Amino acid sequence: MVDMFKILDCTIRDGGYYTNWDFNKALVDQYIESMNKLPVDYLEIGYRSKPLQGYLGKYFYNPSYELLDLKSKSNKKLVVILNEKDVRVEHLDELLTPIKGIIDMVRIAIDPEHLGRAISLAEGIKKMGFEVGFNVMYMSKWNQYSNFMGDLKFVDGVADYFYMVDSYGGVFPKDVIETIGLVKSNTAVKLGFHGHNNLELALINSLTAVEHGVEIIDSTVWGMGRGAGNLKTELLLAVLNSKYGLSIDFNALGDAVSAFDDLLRKYEWGTNLPYMISGSNSLPQKDVMDWVTTRFYSFNSIIRALQNQKEKVKDNERLPLFEPQSKSKQILIIAGGKSASEHASAVLEFVKQNEDMTIIHASSKNAYSYKDIKNEQIFCLIGNEGRRMEKVFDDFGHFNGICVLPPYPRKMGTYVPELVYGRTFELPAIDFTSDFKDSHTALALQTALTLGAEKIYVIGYDGYQDVPISSKERTLTNENEALFAAFHDTSDVELYTLISSNYSILKEQSLYSLLD
Amino acid sequence: MVDMFKILDCTIRDGGYYTNWDFNKALVDQYIESMNKLPVDYLEIGYRSKPLQGYLGKYFYNPSYELLDLKSKSNKKLVVILNEKDVRVEHLDELLTPIKGIIDMVRIAIDPEHLGRAISLAEGIKKMGFEVGFNVMYMSKWNQYSNFMGDLKFVDGVADYFYMVDSYGGVFPKDVIETIGLVKSNTAVKLGFHGHNNLELALINSLTAVEHGVEIIDSTVWGMGRGAGNLKTELLLAVLNSKYGLSIDFNALGDAVSAFDDLLRKYEWGTNLPYMISGSNSLPQKDVMDWVTTRFYSFNSIIRALQNQKEKVKDNERLPLFEPQSKSKQILIIAGGKSASEHASAVLEFVKQNEDMTIIHASSKNAYSYKDIKNEQIFCLIGNEGRRMEKVFDDFGHFNGICVLPPYPRKMGTYVPELVYGRTFELPAIDFTSDFKDSHTALALQTALTLGAEKIYVIGYDGYQDVPISSKERTLTNENEALFAAFHDTSDVELYTLISSNYSILKEQSLYSLLD
Repeated sequence: MVDMFKILDCTIRDGGYYTNWDFNKALVDQYIESMNKLPVDYLEIGYRSKPLQGYLGKYFYNPSYELLDLKSKSNKKLVVILNEKDVRVEHLDELLTPIKGIIDMVRIAIDPEHLGRAISLAEGIKKMGFEVGFNVMYMSKWNQYSNFMGDLKFVDGVADYFYMVDSYGGVFPKDVIETIGLVKSNTAVKLGFHGHNNLELALINSLTAVEHGVEIIDSTVWGMGRGAGNLKTELLLAVLNSKYGLSIDFNALGDAVSAFDDLLRKYEWGTNLPYMISGSNSLPQKDVMDWVTTRFYSFNSIIRALQNQKEKVKDNERLPLFEPQSKSKQILIIAGGKSASEHASAVLEFVKQNEDMTIIHASSKNAYSYKDIKNEQIFCLIGNEGRRMEKVFDDFGHFNGICVLPPYPRKMGTYVPELVYGRTFELPAIDFTSDFKDSHTALALQTALTLGAEKIYVIGYDGYQDVPISSKERTLTNENEALFAAFHDTSDVELYTLISSNYSILKEQSLYSLLD
Repeated sequence: MVDMFKILDCTIRDGGYYTNWDFNKALVDQYIESMNKLPVDYLEIGYRSKPLQGYLGKYFYNPSYELLDLKSKSNKKLVVILNEKDVRVEHLDELLTPIKGIIDMVRIAIDPEHLGRAISLAEGIKKMGFEVGFNVMYMSKWNQYSNFMGDLKFVDGVADYFYMVDSYGGVFPKDVIETIGLVKSNTAVKLGFHGHNNLELALINSLTAVEHGVEIIDSTVWGMGRGAGNLKTELLLAVLNSKYGLSIDFNALGDAVSAFDDLLRKYEWGTNLPYMISGSNSLPQKDVMDWVTTRFYSFNSIIRALQNQKEKVKDNERLPLFEPQSKSKQILIIAGGKSASEHASAVLEFVKQNEDMTIIHASSKNAYSYKDIKNEQIFCLIGNEGRRMEKVFDDFGHFNGICVLPPYPRKMGTYVPELVYGRTFELPAIDFTSDFKDSHTALALQTALTLGAEKIYVIGYDGYQDVPISSKERTLTNENEALFAAFHDTSDVELYTLISSNYSILKEQSLYSLLD
């Protein structure tokens, strides 16, 4: 059996979803060296792409000098992938001419809706002398696209490999067999399989695919890849060795695996309950990955959002719009950072001395200290904040604030603690920024604008002064920085931090200078 | 389908292999509370056992007051397990009478060789009014036991459930089907399946088992369990929900999973390359778990040992016996702790001033500093030390020492760097201790005894003075302590540490007091 199919390792390409396509060069060299000793046929090194907005790393663009270096060190066929949605035939010359003779195969990531467009693109790539791989997403839904199966005949002679991609990680071996049967009845192209591991079925699905005639399999070291990740190269090779007698240099394989240990500890990819739910219900895992890795939303909040998506409830009810009757010239935004709890007694004194000042709680984390004050208080309920609020306020008897949510519809749904239901509103829009609208800070700042703020104090935006900071913390810090900058660009209201902060865009005004 | 089988969650019992059967009480309470809301039928809370040597935690003995407390909080049937090898019929009264009316089912972990003995034990348990579960290990090898299949008929009427345990984690769905067929042709007992996840096949094997008539399935939260772990409860439930319509309270499930997050980060159970190799080759994972979690041997060393086991080479050649011609009255053992490198220049001075002193390198870690001295030097090659030595001595031109290995046969095999091959010996025996013979310290101390030592200095045994220490470090520290104590009990040679140490059994004598 093992002679009948090929293996494509796409660790660098798919692992890039965690590292933003930057990898330490020594790691990549170790990877190449280890793979040289292993029965893997192709290595996919990342994307090629026109310049896109925002920072994306080396292996998203793969400049030819880098590919040339890898080519000189590798005895494998090298592969890059293009995103069909971003690339048209007229871009091919610019994208692919520099890597002719270096790269052996060009793959195309394809939405099944655009199979026709992908075929035109593939013809262009083929003419330039590359092998062509089709990576067609959402295999579990192909039968829902009306022309898809009929159009498969046009793939013959254009694609060298036609990959079925289990995008959601939810297919079972019987589904693999069924899809192979359907595809094979429409085209003679060689088939490939790219399995995701949400349900820990990547191995059995891949072996099943091969038994039913699939000729190329994707895998990655430690399964590194978007969301729950992929079939693990080391698992595939260990099983091919023990069950099918394929000879493996386990020292080389051990080196490849060990090289990625540190990244695994840092990013902790792999399946978990949210990915299992999204996988088994064919829900997209892009959002789930963001919720799990960046926003540290609780499993329960994520699960609730996923359940709602699944039931198409979307848990998204329209709430009354937030339309404050009177303006609040002075605002204090209290965020979740340490300074807000460390200086809580002084802040309490400050708001008592300024009872016309409105308090906006960007997070409920430090809110309980303020339960008895007379100032107007507004709570930002984003993500799982409603649940956190319920934990912070074990007793809502004292609660006299109001709650605001982002505009309808909300990705994470609408969760409002029952006891504050009548006092909860949604913003009509978040319009001072085009990014990160789904964050505490965006909601708090927009609320302040809606209130007609003329001066905004903030506390609890510390910018993670403790080092080392985690990558999650860095992401959130960068987000806040971008939001403060966008606010600064679109509004002439100044933001003052009451405690020294690492956000340099905030003006500093000592809390203690403002107390009587 | 979901009405046709039961689920037994054995997180506390099987997770105890990582925590030594101690779990924070709040965690256990959270677990019980979450399980109350989930469609799980039985909870296995751990072992019951006569007192065994060494420390084993609460859930290995399960005193009745604890089980009574859990019983009052749980709406599930509760289970404990006995190790057949440690329990005879005459122990049953003492072990089980105190938990009558609290525990619903008693399981027995059974080596297939002792099926007959287990049946007698089960009859006793049954008479006391408990449900009885058989957990029979090594299902992949049952056909190698001559009377096993024939004896299965005696299980009828004695066992309520007869579990097939995939001890190695190496069976595939087709093997599950085959074994079920064999067992069913010999007995009418209800079947169970306990799957290990080395090859990420626990889910598909369990679902396959159920489709072929198995009536109870084991799982654990996050798959927590010995070695690579088990079928994940959350994965089973997520799939039963999405594919078979079983109603699941995902908030409760999320709470159960989140409760074990910290333990997962601490112990990092789950599959990895060594477990994949042991699983797919039916090699016992007890040793692998020790190598991976306690001894931090490199993947490559472990893989090499496993490959050798698999090929029955065992990589175990007989080496010449270590029979020193002359005695060495004074010995210095240099271990891997920080003090040995921090005080290296003074130690170098000390050995130069005492050229008749023999140096024993318990680890090669700090050895390179001593490459030019004239003293006799002995290197202890245990586990992967031969490979470490090759890294430390990138040039063996200077090497004039000899190497010693533990007695034949060696679990981790025989790895000797090529250039020291003619200068390498094995000890005839390690006899001053009955435990931890497979360690650097045991080998070094035995070597010192073989040399006829009258006074032994040690350095680099610091006892992990930095806090917090990891559980790996604690295990090694405990081992060394036990070895020093065993040495102290069997020999009147004193051990002096040259630098202050946390091992209180070592006498202190300042390195600096011994220098001219």
